[in-house]
Order: sequence, then C-alpha cells, then structure tokens
Amino acid sequence: MAVYNFAAGPAMLPKEVMLLAQQEFSDYKGCGSGIMELSHRGKLFAPVRDRAESNVRELMNISDDYEVLFIQGGASLQFCMLAMNLLNGGSADYALTGVWSDKAAKEAKNFGTAHIVASSKETKYDHIPCFCEWDLDPKAAYLHITSNNTVAGSEYFDFPTPPEGVPLIVDMSSDIMSRVIDVNKFGMIYAGAQKNLGPAGVALVVIRKDLLSRTKDCVPTMLKYSTYAENKSMFNTPPTFAIYILALVTDWLKAKGGIAAIEKVNIAKAAKLYNYLDQTDFYFTPVAKENRSRMNVVFRTPNADMDAKFVAEATAAGLTELKGHRLVGGCRASIYNAMPEEGVDALIAFMKEFERVNG
Amino acid sequence: MAVYNFAAGPAMLPKEVMLLAQQEFSDYKGCGSGIMELSHRGKLFAPVRDRAESNVRELMNISDDYEVLFIQGGASLQFCMLAMNLLNGGSADYALTGVWSDKAAKEAKNFGTAHIVASSKETKYDHIPCFCEWDLDPKAAYLHITSNNTVAGSEYFDFPTPPEGVPLIVDMSSDIMSRVIDVNKFGMIYAGAQKNLGPAGVALVVIRKDLLSRTKDCVPTMLKYSTYAENKSMFNTPPTFAIYILALVTDWLKAKGGIAAIEKVNIAKAAKLYNYLDQTDFYFTPVAKENRSRMNVVFRTPNADMDAKFVAEATAAGLTELKGHRLVGGCRASIYNAMPEEGVDALIAFMKEFERVNG
Repeated sequence: MAVYNFAAGPAMLPKEVMLLAQQEFSDYKGCGSGIMELSHRGKLFAPVRDRAESNVRELMNISDDYEVLFIQGGASLQFCMLAMNLLNGGSADYALTGVWSDKAAKEAKNFGTAHIVASSKETKYDHIPCFCEWDLDPKAAYLHITSNNTVAGSEYFDFPTPPEGVPLIVDMSSDIMSRVIDVNKFGMIYAGAQKNLGPAGVALVVIRKDLLSRTKDCVPTMLKYSTYAENKSMFNTPPTFAIYILALVTDWLKAKGGIAAIEKVNIAKAAKLYNYLDQTDFYFTPVAKENRSRMNVVFRTPNADMDAKFVAEATAAGLTELKGHRLVGGCRASIYNAMPEEGVDALIAFMKEFERVNG
Repeated sequence: MAVYNFAAGPAMLPKEVMLLAQQEFSDYKGCGSGIMELSHRGKLFAPVRDRAESNVRELMNISDDYEVLFIQGGASLQFCMLAMNLLNGGSADYALTGVWSDKAAKEAKNFGTAHIVASSKETKYDHIPCFCEWDLDPKAAYLHITSNNTVAGSEYFDFPTPPEGVPLIVDMSSDIMSRVIDVNKFGMIYAGAQKNLGPAGVALVVIRKDLLSRTKDCVPTMLKYSTYAENKSMFNTPPTFAIYILALVTDWLKAKGGIAAIEKVNIAKAAKLYNYLDQTDFYFTPVAKENRSRMNVVFRTPNADMDAKFVAEATAAGLTELKGHRLVGGCRASIYNAMPEEGVDALIAFMKEFERVNG
C-alpha cells in the first residue's frame, strides 16, 4: 500500500532523498563511515555544508548582502535570538496571525517592547488582518510576521511594506521554498527545517549583513548571529546530518526545476483540495478564502467524533498524520513540497468516499 | 579494507547501530515513513524519546531527584545556558584544564563572575591541577569542571569535592558513559552527543531538580532548563533523528553489559595504546601520566612534517581522522565506546611499522 504522510512537521521528505540517504548511510562515498560519523571540519563534510549554503542561495536568489546561516534550536529559539540580537531594549512590531507569531511576540518582551500592530486572535486566527489596518511604528526595531500559520492554516500572499528603515522579519518555517519571494524585501528570514527543508534539528536563517552590527557584545557567543556568520555556522559542531539532508533536499528541489516550478505544483495541489472542500457541505474550513494556506489545509467534519473517525480510517487507508494540531483539533493535511500530487488525489478520493458513507 | 575512524566528534558509532538505522531509515516499523518524517508527538516517536530517557537513567543509575533533558545547540550552548539559569549575577568557580573549560568560563562572564580556581593553561593544559591547590569559593553558585579534555587529552579520574551547598557541574561531552560515575555527586552533568552518545545535534543534560527553581523568569523560554523539564524536552520540535540514534546507541550499550562493562574495555584499549607510546622514543605524548585521557589519546611524532605524513599514510591504510585538533596540531586517536579493541590493535600495528620505516 502506498503511504502518504500528511504530518505538519517533522514531515515527509522527497522519496528520492530518503532512498539516497539510506543507501549511503553507513558508508559515505566509500570512506567506510557514515556522514554523521565524520568530523565537521574534514574533507568530506565541508563540501556538503558549502553545497547546502550555495543551494539555498541559488534557489532563493540570495545576494551577497545576506548571510545564510544554519542554527540549532528550531524557529522557537529564533524567537528569543532575534530579539536578543536586534531589539536591544527598543520596540518591535509584531502581527499576530497564529499561535507561533504569538509565541514570537512573547519572547521579545524580555528584551524590549513587543508592539502588536494587528491581530486575528479574537477570531481564532481565521484570517490575516488587512494591511490597511496595521498600526505600524516608524521607529520600530523591526516588523515581524509569520508568513504561513501552520496551526491556523492561513498564509500571506502579499507582504506588508514596513516604514522606511524598518526591516521586515519573517518566520517562514512552513512555507519556505514553497513559492518565489523577493528576499531583498526582508531584513531576515528564518525557518525550522522540518517542514520543507529537511529533518528537525536545524533552522535556516537568512539575514541582511548590515543588521549583524546591531548586536551588543554582552549577548552570549552561541546566540549571536555574527558568530555563525563569521564561522560558516561552524563555531561549534553543527548538526551535520541535518545539514546533509538539507543539502540533499535542496539538490532535489533544483533538479525539480527550482522554486518557481514547485510553486506551480503547490498551487495546483492546494487548489484541488480547496475546490473539493468548497463543493461539499460535509467538510468545512474555517479560514478566510483569500488567506488559505497552500501548505497546511485545515478542515473539519461535522463534529469532533467524526473527525476522529476520519483520521483513524484515513490512517488505515495509508493517509497518515491527518490529525489537527492539539490546540485546535479537527483535521489538517500538510502538503509541503515533498507531497506528490498523487497524495492529494488519494486524499480527495478518500474524503469523497468517507463523505458518501458518513454524510 | 576495514576502516577504523578515530574522529574526535562527530565520531564513529557502533556498527550495529549504523546498520539498524540504515535498515529502517525510510520505513520505520513498517509505517511507510522514516522516523525523521514523523511527528514528534505521534505514537511512533513518543516511545523512542521515552526509551532514550529511560536508557540514560538505567545506564547511569539516575535517581528521581534528577531531570534528564535533551537540548539542541551542543555543549557550547550549555556554557551560556548554565550561567543564564544558575549564575544570576553571582560568582561561580571554574577550573581551566583545556580550551573547552576556558570557553565555558568566558561565557559565564556575561551573567556574573567566573572565578578561576585552578588552571593549567600556562603549560598548555598538560595536566589537571592538584585539588589541594584549588582556590574554592564557599559561596560560589557552582563549581564547573570539564571531566575530559578532548583537545589536550587529559581526564579527571577523581572529582573535586566542592564546599557544602555548592553544586558540582561537569561538562562530560567526551567521556560520558565511558566509565561509572556517581551522579549524586553532581548538580548537573551535560554532554554533546557526538562523541559517545550519538550524532551531533543534541546534548544530554542531567540536572538536580532543586536547581531548576534558581532560574529567573526573564530568561527566554527556550533557554530555561525548566521548559525542557516540564515538557519532556518537547516544548518545541526536538531533534527527533538525533534522539532516535541516541536511543539506539544506549540500547547497544545496555546489550554490551552497560557502563561498567564498557569501562573495562576502555581501560584496556587506552592501556594498550599508552603502553606502546611509553616504550618508544619515536612518538611522544605531552600529557601528565596520571591524567591521560582514556578517550582522546594525543601524541606526536618527532616533527610536524612527520605528523602530517603519519596522518596521510594512516588514512590510506584505513585508520582515519587521526589529525590533532587544529589548535594544537600533532595526532589524536579518539577511542570512544564505539571503537572496538581491534581498531586500537590495528593502530598500534600501523604505528610500529611507521616507526620502523621512519624512525
């Protein structure tokens, strides 16, 4: 039975990547050791790290004005690291569009003021507030947004324009490399790898070089962006295996035609699923139509018992990890880059049959 | 050709672990996905995480007075995290016995005073200073030591007794689980996994529960030990694959008879190598005899050119990663738990032949 894994993260990786990594797992390039057993400063790992960076730069069209860093701790560590490095007792603007953006704002409060410019919290994050209503501070240290809300199932398809001189910082954990963006619009982009880039255990940080000098000396070495920038992210031992998988995933994405090509597939996959959701009364999605995420499709059956039945029967049919986030319940199909269109087709076919029997 | 990998970390893992992980890499327990593609909150990963913890507790005989935590960022992040949580503007005692203990002390300075109780820095960390000379502060927030000095090649075979009420904190990155210790003597033990426990990307922290309350509220969530203690190290997505490998490595160690059994092997391996070094004038080890590390055997040939020749020819003969740390040069054979006695035998045989030809 073909299994399609709809986990929100850690999530499915491209089949080709999994098979190649498996093949060379215990004997990398004939050296007799696995890549995870090798020194990060040795001749075999160095080109892997360099390729991970050059792939990211090529795919996202990143200029030399930016550093590309690999940091442990996930996006959650970035919530405080960002504020430690760039806030410095000032005030930063935060838009609350989901639980993760809320957490990011809370962590900033230890290092200055988190000014909430917009929020959809009162309506359970069912939409992205219109930029026309945002209360932007022209003196903000930065403006922070979460481009895709993994739990709520919403996504920004445009980006706000911050006041002049205010860098736009974005947590792209769950839609990084799923669509073409202009990196030059951002002061910093960060993303945990475990959705679109690789396994859990490494976060990608793309930061404009001029921002590095904002960090005070008293910030601990391991929490300064400059430490990673000055040491090719190898001040200490990096998570070598996670970076290796990220290199393979980005190799795969390049071979697929890059981000523009995968974006087309992602648009088609999401459209199929939302089109089906819109033409049935059995399933329901709470997200505003114009903000529906292409990565995390959140939906419900008529009631919570039926949701549980749906998830259990889908799992038995090889459509796994469809349970919604524990904070919101319901169902969620995460359809990142690695999910083939056939997986979405199989899900829709199952949903139709489940509706026929239970509707 | 059999390859023996003497890397200091990331380092070789038990062959059985590598082969099992390879076998189930892309289809874990028949679920159709790899373990790294699964949700950290799902039914398949939860028992892996729990087994990692219970294995650590069983092997090290850890009581319920201690928390067992898995944290990203390596031991280097612990240098600052420790001080952020437990120093609080006070003064802590540090013994300098290698470059890593020096780094740990430097990171403490951002959060209070790092009082140096003893140091062998002036003699290039060639010994562990006698405890009789240590200038201990009875009011110190803690006393910090590095039990094995990976770069210098020295190791504590006794531990200092701090003044009453002062917790002893130890960085055991490179000798954790290589020998039996009494955990109850310590306030906290930490170790990057990539030497004796698994791959790079996760650190083990064993901390006495009463110390958790010392942390001030203003410490960021991801940098508080209590966050990990209260959430089974899953406040955010943990490095699932690294924890999985750690579970396999500790399974392996249990099957080998546990730490007492592997300690005997480690003593025998190190004795063989040092005995050979002591009976030749061609090779030289700078470390004081009573402090020689069982994990990292540091040695030199008559000159740097010969060191390079030695490393190159050894590599060609399947004895890899013998180059000394970039800060000190020379040669280094790291012989952690996973290095079989045959690897040490092969190294000694090669060293003899190299000496015969070049001596």
